Amino acid sequence: MIPPTEPVLIEIRDRVATLTLNSPGSRNALSHAMLAALSKRLDEISSHPDVRVVLLAAEGPAFCAGHDLKELTARRNDPDRGRAFFAETMRACSALMQQIVALPQPVIAAVDEMATAAGCQLVASCDLAVAGPRARFCTPGVDIGLFCATPAVALSRAVAPKQAMAMLLTGVPIGAEEALRIGLVNRVSPDGARTGARTLADVIAAKSPAAIRYGKRAFYAQREKPLAEAYDLASAVMVDNMLAGDAVEGIAAFLEKRAPVWD
Amino acid sequence: MIPPTEPVLIEIRDRVATLTLNSPGSRNALSHAMLAALSKRLDEISSHPDVRVVLLAAEGPAFCAGHDLKELTARRNDPDRGRAFFAETMRACSALMQQIVALPQPVIAAVDEMATAAGCQLVASCDLAVAGPRARFCTPGVDIGLFCATPAVALSRAVAPKQAMAMLLTGVPIGAEEALRIGLVNRVSPDGARTGARTLADVIAAKSPAAIRYGKRAFYAQREKPLAEAYDLASAVMVDNMLAGDAVEGIAAFLEKRAPVWD
Amino acid sequence: MIPPTEPVLIEIRDRVATLTLNSPGSRNALSHAMLAALSKRLDEISSHPDVRVVLLAAEGPAFCAGHDLKELTARRNDPDRGRAFFAETMRACSALMQQIVALPQPVIAAVDEMATAAGCQLVASCDLAVAGPRARFCTPGVDIGLFCATPAVALSRAVAPKQAMAMLLTGVPIGAEEALRIGLVNRVSPDGARTGARTLADVIAAKSPAAIRYGKRAFYAQREKPLAEAYDLASAVMVDNMLAGDAVEGIAAFLEKRAPVWD
Repeated sequence: MIPPTEPVLIEIRDRVATLTLNSPGSRNALSHAMLAALSKRLDEISSHPDVRVVLLAAEGPAFCAGHDLKELTARRNDPDRGRAFFAETMRACSALMQQIVALPQPVIAAVDEMATAAGCQLVASCDLAVAGPRARFCTPGVDIGLFCATPAVALSRAVAPKQAMAMLLTGVPIGAEEALRIGLVNRVSPDGARTGARTLADVIAAKSPAAIRYGKRAFYAQREKPLAEAYDLASAVMVDNMLAGDAVEGIAAFLEKRAPVWD
Repeated sequence: MIPPTEPVLIEIRDRVATLTLNSPGSRNALSHAMLAALSKRLDEISSHPDVRVVLLAAEGPAFCAGHDLKELTARRNDPDRGRAFFAETMRACSALMQQIVALPQPVIAAVDEMATAAGCQLVASCDLAVAGPRARFCTPGVDIGLFCATPAVALSRAVAPKQAMAMLLTGVPIGAEEALRIGLVNRVSPDGARTGARTLADVIAAKSPAAIRYGKRAFYAQREKPLAEAYDLASAVMVDNMLAGDAVEGIAAFLEKRAPVWD
Repeated sequence: MIPPTEPVLIEIRDRVATLTLNSPGSRNALSHAMLAALSKRLDEISSHPDVRVVLLAAEGPAFCAGHDLKELTARRNDPDRGRAFFAETMRACSALMQQIVALPQPVIAAVDEMATAAGCQLVASCDLAVAGPRARFCTPGVDIGLFCATPAVALSRAVAPKQAMAMLLTGVPIGAEEALRIGLVNRVSPDGARTGARTLADVIAAKSPAAIRYGKRAFYAQREKPLAEAYDLASAVMVDNMLAGDAVEGIAAFLEKRAPVWD
């Protein structure tokens, strides 16, 4: 049994790992403890043979409230006014977001409540996201004198710039339907985000995990390159993938009109 | 009193500067005089302590008709067939668009009528845009043998490529709702663009101006970088912003459940 | 007469070249023969004085099924397990996609049926796309153990990342309306894709071909550059375009309120 005080719960069932932010009292704020726990869970999952998809969900009245402002404020009394601690916080948080991008398995955010600031960044950083009908998303750093600059990195890569800027400059939350319209989430699930995300996860969990590993890495790597280089990179990945066991099996199964059996 | 012949009017009220293109007879074409006047206004605003948000509006039957074709054509008689003048026009116009992007304050376009070519580029270059119900947007250079190549720079960074290409290759105008759908504007305001843009401006004008300065610059800078570099840049901005007065005050006010007072 | 066994038919009428994938029995799979034929047709068109726009359509029950899996699988018996052949296939296919981007004339995909994997990439690589009501789009490489990594290059440049990822990770097809919503196609044509695409093509065919040549090249070149460099590039193109015959004529015609006559 995992004790109930763990900041991030993990459950692995039928090839899907569900990570649940479990600090409802702090609205799942990304304290150092929460960042470390989440990073550790992702690290365990990255090489776990039974995990093909990751769901990221949350307990309590908020999906994630962003950084832990009390923890940050306490360090204003440090001799350097907190600079070193703030820098370490940003480093750890940015590393976590990039860990999601670099994780071999797809990560799906399941958002039923408010995702704020770095909490919204977490959603934007996932490969896919499903919203429940009450989900909301905001980047309200301008309300506390601290622009959501690191959330903007993920948000501006997920949605069109004017749509990102409206969220960043006004701090006003958007609802699930608007998040769907602008591309921040893939689906609005009337039965709740977890139900919808699980359905999506089960679809992906049945696919070739090797193909998904090749592909997720290539997807993000090629995006940062000019077109010709992107094609060179992706072509090399396709050739390696073609020679791997799952493609041998998968293409043979397709031509023989039978179900494939993945490695 | 500003004389009525000023090509760009300025009004500052309640921390919002409204710049009004005021050459209705030329459909607010971006002549050298208009480019220079607009650039001068933005330059004044950039360091103006009372201006937190800029509205860009227009008088007359068009928002902005783009370059001044008569002015350009007159220079075909120059010994170099106009090359130097055309180059200087493009340099000045491109500099103006980048001045909007670099301005410390957010700029909101308020578009009630047609925005054509470089006029559409102006809208695409603003941080946010609000359309009135009759607003239209087009890049019809192909109709006069001159592809809207510089407008394409801003347009292709605002909307998806096929949507930009449809406008650029056909020259056909899109309406307010279509502009909203593709992300070229943030809102359609039934009461007119200025009313809607002013409401949005007032929301932003109440936020920390220091935070917005940090954030707007970081937003555009990080967009041009690979993910890891973008996070390094944005993290450094967050740390500096955390140590600035508005974040000290804003976070304290939030934790003390009171309204912040910005520097 | 073109013999009916040609893998790609060509018809040139009223300045529009229609290329028709004509291998319905193989669902227009991109075999080496098909890639070579399509590349050859595009090469002929690129310098054809009568062709201002290209339509890309297809015969039979599928728009294009992607790579020819039988052809690829047969080479698994090669001494190198097919590596050289697979690499050459990816090179040829990626070159074809980039040939579409580099073609002086705009290319419009007209999609009435399923576009799969590299077939979907073909649509994403075109400048514009029109869907018929029954059109569908998918990247189901994960079903056969081979992630659609090269299709992802084009798809991730056409639509928002979470929308691309949903297609790539699930393999589930999207319909015409969804493709319109996410920006993969420009229009859904109730009368069929060819009718809608032809209407669009006729609009573009009436524009200055020189302007479109300047512009299409500039559009894709500037997209890969930071903002300041993008403006430098596009400004230089504008100046050259201004001094070309079609802009002299087009701007004069506009000022004289008459129809232009293009070179």
